[in-house]
Amino acid sequence: MIPRYSRPDMAAIWTPEARYAIWFEIEAHATDALAELGVVPKSAAQALWAWWATKPAIDVAAIDAIEAVTKHDVIAFLTWVAEQVGDEARFMHQGMTSSDVLDTTLSVQLARAADLLIADIDALLAVLERRAKEHKLTPTIGRSHGIHAEPVTFGLKLAQAHAEFSRHRTRLVAAREDIATCAISGAVGTFANVDPRVEEHVAGKLGLAIEPVSTQVIPRDRHAMFFATLGVIASSVERVATEVRHLQRTEVLEAEEYFSPGQKGSSAMPHKRNPVLTENLTGLARMVRGYVTPALENVALWHERDISHSSVERYIGPDATITLDFALARLTGVVDKLLVYPERMQKNLDRMGGLVHSQRVLLALTQAGVSREDSYRLVQRNAMKVWESDGQLSLQELLKADPEVTAALSPAQIDEKFDLGYHFKHVDTIFDRVFGG
Amino acid sequence: MIPRYSRPDMAAIWTPEARYAIWFEIEAHATDALAELGVVPKSAAQALWAWWATKPAIDVAAIDAIEAVTKHDVIAFLTWVAEQVGDEARFMHQGMTSSDVLDTTLSVQLARAADLLIADIDALLAVLERRAKEHKLTPTIGRSHGIHAEPVTFGLKLAQAHAEFSRHRTRLVAAREDIATCAISGAVGTFANVDPRVEEHVAGKLGLAIEPVSTQVIPRDRHAMFFATLGVIASSVERVATEVRHLQRTEVLEAEEYFSPGQKGSSAMPHKRNPVLTENLTGLARMVRGYVTPALENVALWHERDISHSSVERYIGPDATITLDFALARLTGVVDKLLVYPERMQKNLDRMGGLVHSQRVLLALTQAGVSREDSYRLVQRNAMKVWESDGQLSLQELLKADPEVTAALSPAQIDEKFDLGYHFKHVDTIFDRVFGG
Amino acid sequence: MIPRYSRPDMAAIWTPEARYAIWFEIEAHATDALAELGVVPKSAAQALWAWWATKPAIDVAAIDAIEAVTKHDVIAFLTWVAEQVGDEARFMHQGMTSSDVLDTTLSVQLARAADLLIADIDALLAVLERRAKEHKLTPTIGRSHGIHAEPVTFGLKLAQAHAEFSRHRTRLVAAREDIATCAISGAVGTFANVDPRVEEHVAGKLGLAIEPVSTQVIPRDRHAMFFATLGVIASSVERVATEVRHLQRTEVLEAEEYFSPGQKGSSAMPHKRNPVLTENLTGLARMVRGYVTPALENVALWHERDISHSSVERYIGPDATITLDFALARLTGVVDKLLVYPERMQKNLDRMGGLVHSQRVLLALTQAGVSREDSYRLVQRNAMKVWESDGQLSLQELLKADPEVTAALSPAQIDEKFDLGYHFKHVDTIFDRVFGG
Amino acid sequence: MIPRYSRPDMAAIWTPEARYAIWFEIEAHATDALAELGVVPKSAAQALWAWWATKPAIDVAAIDAIEAVTKHDVIAFLTWVAEQVGDEARFMHQGMTSSDVLDTTLSVQLARAADLLIADIDALLAVLERRAKEHKLTPTIGRSHGIHAEPVTFGLKLAQAHAEFSRHRTRLVAAREDIATCAISGAVGTFANVDPRVEEHVAGKLGLAIEPVSTQVIPRDRHAMFFATLGVIASSVERVATEVRHLQRTEVLEAEEYFSPGQKGSSAMPHKRNPVLTENLTGLARMVRGYVTPALENVALWHERDISHSSVERYIGPDATITLDFALARLTGVVDKLLVYPERMQKNLDRMGGLVHSQRVLLALTQAGVSREDSYRLVQRNAMKVWESDGQLSLQELLKADPEVTAALSPAQIDEKFDLGYHFKHVDTIFDRVFGG
Repeated sequence: MIPRYSRPDMAAIWTPEARYAIWFEIEAHATDALAELGVVPKSAAQALWAWWATKPAIDVAAIDAIEAVTKHDVIAFLTWVAEQVGDEARFMHQGMTSSDVLDTTLSVQLARAADLLIADIDALLAVLERRAKEHKLTPTIGRSHGIHAEPVTFGLKLAQAHAEFSRHRTRLVAAREDIATCAISGAVGTFANVDPRVEEHVAGKLGLAIEPVSTQVIPRDRHAMFFATLGVIASSVERVATEVRHLQRTEVLEAEEYFSPGQKGSSAMPHKRNPVLTENLTGLARMVRGYVTPALENVALWHERDISHSSVERYIGPDATITLDFALARLTGVVDKLLVYPERMQKNLDRMGGLVHSQRVLLALTQAGVSREDSYRLVQRNAMKVWESDGQLSLQELLKADPEVTAALSPAQIDEKFDLGYHFKHVDTIFDRVFGG
Repeated sequence: MIPRYSRPDMAAIWTPEARYAIWFEIEAHATDALAELGVVPKSAAQALWAWWATKPAIDVAAIDAIEAVTKHDVIAFLTWVAEQVGDEARFMHQGMTSSDVLDTTLSVQLARAADLLIADIDALLAVLERRAKEHKLTPTIGRSHGIHAEPVTFGLKLAQAHAEFSRHRTRLVAAREDIATCAISGAVGTFANVDPRVEEHVAGKLGLAIEPVSTQVIPRDRHAMFFATLGVIASSVERVATEVRHLQRTEVLEAEEYFSPGQKGSSAMPHKRNPVLTENLTGLARMVRGYVTPALENVALWHERDISHSSVERYIGPDATITLDFALARLTGVVDKLLVYPERMQKNLDRMGGLVHSQRVLLALTQAGVSREDSYRLVQRNAMKVWESDGQLSLQELLKADPEVTAALSPAQIDEKFDLGYHFKHVDTIFDRVFGG
Repeated sequence: MIPRYSRPDMAAIWTPEARYAIWFEIEAHATDALAELGVVPKSAAQALWAWWATKPAIDVAAIDAIEAVTKHDVIAFLTWVAEQVGDEARFMHQGMTSSDVLDTTLSVQLARAADLLIADIDALLAVLERRAKEHKLTPTIGRSHGIHAEPVTFGLKLAQAHAEFSRHRTRLVAAREDIATCAISGAVGTFANVDPRVEEHVAGKLGLAIEPVSTQVIPRDRHAMFFATLGVIASSVERVATEVRHLQRTEVLEAEEYFSPGQKGSSAMPHKRNPVLTENLTGLARMVRGYVTPALENVALWHERDISHSSVERYIGPDATITLDFALARLTGVVDKLLVYPERMQKNLDRMGGLVHSQRVLLALTQAGVSREDSYRLVQRNAMKVWESDGQLSLQELLKADPEVTAALSPAQIDEKFDLGYHFKHVDTIFDRVFGG
Repeated sequence: MIPRYSRPDMAAIWTPEARYAIWFEIEAHATDALAELGVVPKSAAQALWAWWATKPAIDVAAIDAIEAVTKHDVIAFLTWVAEQVGDEARFMHQGMTSSDVLDTTLSVQLARAADLLIADIDALLAVLERRAKEHKLTPTIGRSHGIHAEPVTFGLKLAQAHAEFSRHRTRLVAAREDIATCAISGAVGTFANVDPRVEEHVAGKLGLAIEPVSTQVIPRDRHAMFFATLGVIASSVERVATEVRHLQRTEVLEAEEYFSPGQKGSSAMPHKRNPVLTENLTGLARMVRGYVTPALENVALWHERDISHSSVERYIGPDATITLDFALARLTGVVDKLLVYPERMQKNLDRMGGLVHSQRVLLALTQAGVSREDSYRLVQRNAMKVWESDGQLSLQELLKADPEVTAALSPAQIDEKFDLGYHFKHVDTIFDRVFGG
């Protein structure tokens, strides 16, 4: 966890205090259920909740000190709680195993993390939609392979990102559902010493599903799917970040990250405005992706469980969720305040001397009866002249001066092919698909 | 693609012939729609389908030869088709771009691959269910950390795998839905030269959804999610494989891969029966996982598209699906024919002198009013003697001879705690959860 | 292995015929040593070599057919050889285990692959050196964050790549040395049934080192290091490829991949010249990187060995080496024939109105006694005007018109700071470092 | 950085204080060199060192506060230093760029981290050697595929690990050399504003090599190689950890992690002694491996540099080195105190009824003139009886009762093949190879 890449709400999920609070709630809810089943006295549960109602501070250092002796975290915690609550506390954890607490806690943490991430995506989607609609018809050049292709609108670029993150929202909801299960099934998952109704009760109270079959641990395919989903989302963060980085290049400069007045871009080159936020996002995406493979390697635990997953999750539980949360919020800020330069977009669009309309001419020639091969040749030979002039010559004019072309198309027909609006006639359709009618 | 790790149905999806057949269908369906819209003559579409009805062999070598000149695969294909169909073929591909064909084809291939993988999982689930029910109450020791813990049944192990692969089925269905989209939107996705109704028509014919907003290419977050899902599934293949490898260890030997009479385990040690299939599955899982990161790296294409994803997909499209298909089928075979040794399971269960029942005694002592700490101490000191005797001493007898224990529990109460059936009383509940009531 | 990304020499290393030929040589050399030690008759070795001298074709199908029955590849091979050579062949493989043959063969294959890759790098280095020297003093803008920074030369860019690949050469030589070991140590590496002198003899004949301690297998940390090294090299391939992709962007266009006359860039946009080779290299780099993790996961084999590494190596042995070989050769071709446009470089260099010299002015002001903060402020306020004019205003002129600046620097002093040559005075030093004096 | 997986010396390298101290030293050494060259007054360097000689505490909070305004870390630091040192400080950083400081600092940190890791490996090697020699001739069964193969000694297992980590030491020394370079070359690496002799001077003072050609940044192939090497080492940590986990399994129990008297293995099963340290190491290895790919992805920076690598390195710089340092130390402790049970090793060795000697009998039969196929059949049919008796029958006795066998081998000859010492006759040779003569 890198403080500069952390936001407080997500970081709060992963503090020792937050973890111990969930531990307590699991134990106390379980004690409720055990009392209801007559396994432990109702006074035991009451004592726990009465203490909890005092909103006691959790003394992490004290628990750590006990763990230093027992070398067992859950026993250390139970011991500390017993010191606070008194004799009734001995009924806690009856028939349960440490993993019942640990794994269910991780489910709660990951579910809460997912909730924040879903909210992050919602915020991003809102900003993408606003800016997409703002630039719905702002013409800009579409580029394939980094080369000018045909016109698009800047709004379409953002609509594409919106559709992509809408999919991520769906995937994240599924991943959250996948991870949000409760296992209280005892030492090897047989419920030998704890009735399945305890699990059902605790699950219900915590808003979790029951784990159909656990083996001391909740199976790690769930976690693997969760972290893999974060890795996919991070890759789309990189995609949008890369787009901004490209647009901010000196020669392109169609958009820029917001540049606050006090900000210095470089100690050496004061004129520079660098896309440092989106470059940073590119790096953060690498990290979130990097956590996928360890999560996948965690799946194949030995027999009913080994504990190799645990150290991995101490890293990636916080690191993957905190980093992605930060990245999504940063990306939202970037898009929200992105400086967009429509004039520059138009200028770039014009700089190729009309080459971007060549496809239309090609089609028109074919439809006018010229063979595909000849059409291609005619367009290409004129296009090459424009290309080599670095946009100083005009394709439109060259075509009108080429007798083989004008044999098939009249000057008016040629002119008609250079209408920019032609390309945007279906923008409404696409926006309807993405944002609804 | 490694022939020995390929099965014919999956491999068939990825042949050049299969790819070209999909190309043709896309082009021909698109021509239908274009004809319907009046853009091209209906005779053009008819000519294409008439030729296709003759079930023509696709001459891959001829197409390759054209591509060697044009250095463009789709143009090469269209040229070859035009040679076969004649003049009417010039109306094909009107307003479309190569990626419309290529990306939609990849969607069809991945959707078909997903269908085979879903069927693979169904076959695996059927075998897991059969064998789980067969061994529903076959006692075996549950192990955490590789150490004997408490009894489970062999059926429970398989039920756990069944639940895990049921989740994978759900995820794979979602991944299939995610990937099964059709984009026919032209050079930069604006439908400038091709009406969106063409896309709708082709999508419907191919059983695909329309891509809401494409940018020449179908966005690669879809593919990333698809391959990430395969990586998660592969990790569970490794989990089950690892379980079998453990069970087949000389000292454990509770189960074995089926060993055919003619098979030689080792050129040097004729007595050896090695779990080579599941070791092989472990390696195959590594490969399928290894394809996840390249798929994630493919997401951040530049602007409307670059073609860096293409070479990656030439590898991982076939390799990930073929390998996982093979692995799932191999795993199904392993589980189906797995030699299970209940006697040996019982023998291993007994070898620890009853230590596996220590948890029950611990609970009984607590419930009889002994403090948690004292209970733990009492059980532990007797358990340690058994442990150090390598199972020659009996915990049951030692406890009955320990006055501090018998002060709290009668011999009969102690004996009751060593009942194996006690652990299996909720097996029905778990099986109901996994396999239904 | 994707045929279009394969070159024949590297692919030849991985054919069954090549593998069996190495198997034979190992067995025959071992038989020589065994004969020398008196373990087997000298006639046995003579019979093997006599047969081999006839340059027999290796009948892969026949061996496969035997393997289909025995389910053991080495036994199948030995059986087939025995069928060819006759009775004397029964002395082959005395005291050896299959892995002695398999692992030593893999060492030979990887060492040969390394030799080809080293030659590939040498070819790349030669081309980089030639083109670096050709453009040693071709001015171009250096860019950080995609933003114009200060002038560099195009030769410096290539010199940087040269230095990077020189390091890779060193690493690859080390990786080759690491992998080139021979193990003939029997079933668990104890030499119980085969004298260590056999290993020494075979190693010497094959140009390998002896493996100091093997455990049936050669330890997989060696292979992991090998494939990790390939992954690092591939990442540098991507770096150079990314540079070319950037330079070829429409707005930049300082360099282009060679464009052959017959080549069509796009079926729809005939004017397009896309950097498809370097985009392809970007994807290929992802694949070679993707093979690193499976290789790392192969290290932790169980006990003296398990066979999980084997399937992984069937993929990545050929795929990683063939792909990187192809990528290096393709990159060499790209650099060799790269179209470089010095005029365009100069044009881009000039387009920022002299902003690239701002660092020099900043220093001059500081050295003239202006505080760092004030110097920064003075430069920045003029630089911002130039920036906002999109390079229409000249920093040089603005500074000369700024009284606070001219209070510290005379116009002549200001002019002096805009000398391009100033930046190149240490190019010789750098070239000496990279290419020698 | 997870505190529980951190050791103080390594963590100290990555504190802000340590980083700023290196920054200062770089700046001060550079000022020395600049003074020597006459670029800045000698008094400037003297003022810096005079202040430094007072061992000033570095006020991280104050620097952070400045950075919050300037949004630039190096400027913030320089500003703070100037506040402390006074007017002379304005000569600092003359002609340098932030990356000169940042990248050279990272080199120093990684080189120091490498030094600690090399020392870790040396400590591990010492322990491995001691324990290997202690158990040089302790017989234990060698296992391939988890199945009993032939006898080895426990010392051989440790010797193998020693050889493996010796290789890692060599690789780490190479990786350290690779990473330990100094770049002070200015904004785009041309030395335009800073003489190369400054770089040479600082490099010499810091014990670094000069970077032959930098581009504002030190090229990231160096870092990639460094982190890749850590990933390979981590994989071997997992290998040894996996071996211990296997040996500690209930059914095997040939070795155990040291179990301190106060330690509780499980809250529920007091008899359990779990290999939690080595399971933990398995997870830590996953993390160190997980950092390799982000490091590889960092190589392809755009043009002369972008800053996407920076966030990645904030994570993996500390996390990879701290985690591996901890893991190596933990592994050293595990091996150092490993409880080894030779009696149990012997017991396991004997449990297969002599099957482990079958290879020797096979060879003897072949050498006695029986065909390979018949020899195999004879050994296999007796071996199978032993196998199916679960070690109750003795291969030695069965062979002596098999007339087809005794037709070729006398009882005495058969007995001779069951001598355990036979397998250890080359242990000296192997130990000589690993530990020297």
